[in-house]
Order: sequence, then structure tokens, then C-alpha cells
Amino acid sequence: MIYKLTLEYDGSGFHGWQAQPGRRTVEGEVRRALEVVTRQRSRLVAAGRTDAGAHALGQVVGVALELAPDLKRLQRSLNGLLPPEIAVVGVEEVAPTFHARFSARRRHYRYLVENRGVRPALLQGRAWHVRPTLDRTAMRAAASALTGRHDLGQFGKDPAGRSTVRSLERLEIRRVRGDADGDLIAFHFTADAFLYGMVRRMVGFLAEVGLGLRDSGEAALAAAGETIRPARVAPACGLYQLRVEYPEVA
Amino acid sequence: MIYKLTLEYDGSGFHGWQAQPGRRTVEGEVRRALEVVTRQRSRLVAAGRTDAGAHALGQVVGVALELAPDLKRLQRSLNGLLPPEIAVVGVEEVAPTFHARFSARRRHYRYLVENRGVRPALLQGRAWHVRPTLDRTAMRAAASALTGRHDLGQFGKDPAGRSTVRSLERLEIRRVRGDADGDLIAFHFTADAFLYGMVRRMVGFLAEVGLGLRDSGEAALAAAGETIRPARVAPACGLYQLRVEYPEVA
Repeated sequence: MIYKLTLEYDGSGFHGWQAQPGRRTVEGEVRRALEVVTRQRSRLVAAGRTDAGAHALGQVVGVALELAPDLKRLQRSLNGLLPPEIAVVGVEEVAPTFHARFSARRRHYRYLVENRGVRPALLQGRAWHVRPTLDRTAMRAAASALTGRHDLGQFGKDPAGRSTVRSLERLEIRRVRGDADGDLIAFHFTADAFLYGMVRRMVGFLAEVGLGLRDSGEAALAAAGETIRPARVAPACGLYQLRVEYPEVA
Repeated sequence: MIYKLTLEYDGSGFHGWQAQPGRRTVEGEVRRALEVVTRQRSRLVAAGRTDAGAHALGQVVGVALELAPDLKRLQRSLNGLLPPEIAVVGVEEVAPTFHARFSARRRHYRYLVENRGVRPALLQGRAWHVRPTLDRTAMRAAASALTGRHDLGQFGKDPAGRSTVRSLERLEIRRVRGDADGDLIAFHFTADAFLYGMVRRMVGFLAEVGLGLRDSGEAALAAAGETIRPARVAPACGLYQLRVEYPEVA
């Protein structure tokens, strides 16, 4: 039987999602907890591998288990064993054809920027700190040119080295909080699938536009397939995997 | 000269605001950084003392310094010395009559409740975890009865043992985030001044109303000065000091 786990985690203390020998990773912790609870070794398939320091509100993981467990009890046991920075927020049985990565139809990411002169204290490790004031109007113009179906190969790699065409359905820039001390800015991304590093590189690109280091018109050039100067990669700490959508019958 | 510092901090790793020998406190860290930068011992006056584990986005501190410093430089130096969980978000010179606590005219607090079956991972140490679904309609009815000018002595103590009459101008309950996994609920408090423990005890009271352990009508009784069963005290980790208002000429 295949089960779908939905995970929330604060990635600050982890070397990313993927299990690596001798390193504390989210996958490693979840796998160990699953082994203790189910007494079987299991292979996890994640919807997307998050980088070291990146966070998740709705990472989706598929796992095959031989014995049908009591789902509520499985969830409780896992949450009892996992470190406090990881929580299993949902467990359900899915069709045998379910694949956390390949069955996904749409993914949502959020990226947070603390845009003020002073470093973040409460959002330390949870937002990118950008000191100079970002021009949101210019960033929004660039964001709007990037949405749609384009070859986005300049913003990231396909994991299998295949097509880098993606449908970026939404790239919204919202001021979450603003006062005399500065702004907290959220970038919301929705796409059918993301290239490796795509959100972080797009945020880096947009920040360069917002800082006046780059013209917002470059977004249209990039979307049209023209080569632009490589964008900086925004740090992982501002990145949140929000949600993954699957077809009704997965 | 008197200076007003505005502080943001994540209180998770501190034994509260107030300096105590041998304990890591926010006041202790700020005092030490000030001593290093100004080379003088200084007494800090906080707008309000936060409990161990409580947070601040706008704690206000008054400090007397003999030499007039370059304010921008003072702020930068302090932020360079302070631990990452504390940031000085503002420094200004104020009138000699300024007193961070006694000059304050209005204070704002926020309290966060993660209301879902599963413990918080990303908001671990930053919200109170309440498993059963809270009845927001009942809580709002109780909150509305608590607003206004009342003797709130049942919800906390006056620091000097004086009158416990306070003007609670606003007690708003907002659903910040809601999905299949549950809700994140924010309680926003505005008052002329708060009693010790008042926000935490009021949130405890409202949670009891929301859980059906107490009738929302008890709020009107308490506001009218009648004695009610003591309310539980909500944990400090959900509490955020937001902002303190002073008269134009402080």
C-alpha cells in the first residue's frame, strides 16, 4: 500500500531534505521514525527536495508500507518520535499509481524577504535580509513578464536534464507587513513544476530589479528565450514549500 | 540625554526581559552591548517586562547616556554585538521627561494560537498549541464583552499594587491562516496599560470559552466586577509585544 505523508518543517537545523550519511537531514529523520514505528525499511519519495535551510508547510512524501497501519496512530507515533522542527500534518492512503513527484500537477512556494535596514531577529533564518528598499512596482512588472509558459532554463535545471519549459501560473509580490522600520515582502510562486533552484534564482533576479541593478525589461527578454546576465541566487532560508496539488484520483 | 531604543526579539532562548544574575535575559544582553559601545554603565527602563519565552516586535527601552552618540552608529554597533535573536530596530533621542513605562499611552500585544490536531513545527515556541477546534464565534462574543473600561483585577496584578482598572480598547480575534489541517488564530489586544499576566490570562479565559469549558456570558460578569472562576494562564511562547505609543512630545 502507498501512503502520502504531508510534512511541515523548519529547515534551519537540517542539511536539506535528502538523506546523506553522517548529516542531519529531514528525510533521514522521517525515515528513522518510520522504521521505528513500522519496523520496516522504506524508501521515501518527496514531491521536491528542499535545500539546506529551506522550510516546508506542505512537503508531500510517498512511502510504500507492507502492513496497513492505523493512520491516526501512525501519525501520532511519528509526531512523538520526530524532532520538534518536523511535524506530520497529514497521512492518507493513496492509489498504487501515486508518485509524490511525478503525479504532482501544481506546486506552490513562498519566499520571504525582510526588507529593512536592520537584520531580522524574529525571522532570523526564516527570511532573506535585503537592506536597501526594493522597488515593488518594478519587481511586479518583471514578475508579470515571467509568468506564463516559457523556457526557464536560465533560472534552473531540470533534474533529469530534460526540457526546461515550465508554466509559471502565478508570481505574486505582496507586502505582508510594513511600517516605519521597513517591509516584509512575500513572493508567491505557482507552477506545474519547478526547475532546481528556480524560486531562489527568480527571487534573486527580482531583487536585482527591485534594487535597480537590472532593468525590469530583462524579464521579458528572458521569457522570450534570450540570454540575460545570470541572476544571483537568493538564500535558502527565505524559501517555504507551501503545497503540492495532485489530481483527484492520484 | 535620554534615548529611546526599539527592540525586536525572539524570546525563546531567554529567561524573560529582566536582568537576573547568572541567567540569559534580554535586558542583560542589551545592557552588556550598551556598556561595550558607550563605555558607561546604564540603567534600562522597559515599557513592559516580558516573561520568559515571550517575544517582542516593538519593545521600547529608555536609557540615559552621558555623551551624545551618533545614533545610526550606536544602532549599528549594538546590532553587531547583540545575539541574532535580538535586534535594535530604532534609536532616537527623546525629551528628558520621557519614561518608557510611565509615558506610554497605549500598548499593543498579539497572541498566537496554533489550533490544530498536530503540534506546530514552524511555529514551535512561537504559538500556543491547542488541539480541539476553538469556537471563534463564542470567543468573539466574550472578547467583545471584555472590551471597554473595567476593573480587570481578575486577569492580572498592577505592578505597584494600585488600581486594576484598565481601558481595553480592542480585543480582536482573527484567523490568520486556515486549511484542512487547522487554523492559526491571532488575538490582538490594545489597552492604555496592561496588568501583569493580563494578556496570557485573557487568552486562557477565551480559550476556555472556545473549548466550551466556560460560558461566553462569564465575560460580561467579569467586566461588571463579579468574581468568576480563575482562568488558566496561556503559555508565554504565544505572546508578542507589538508596539507602544507615546504622546507626540514625550
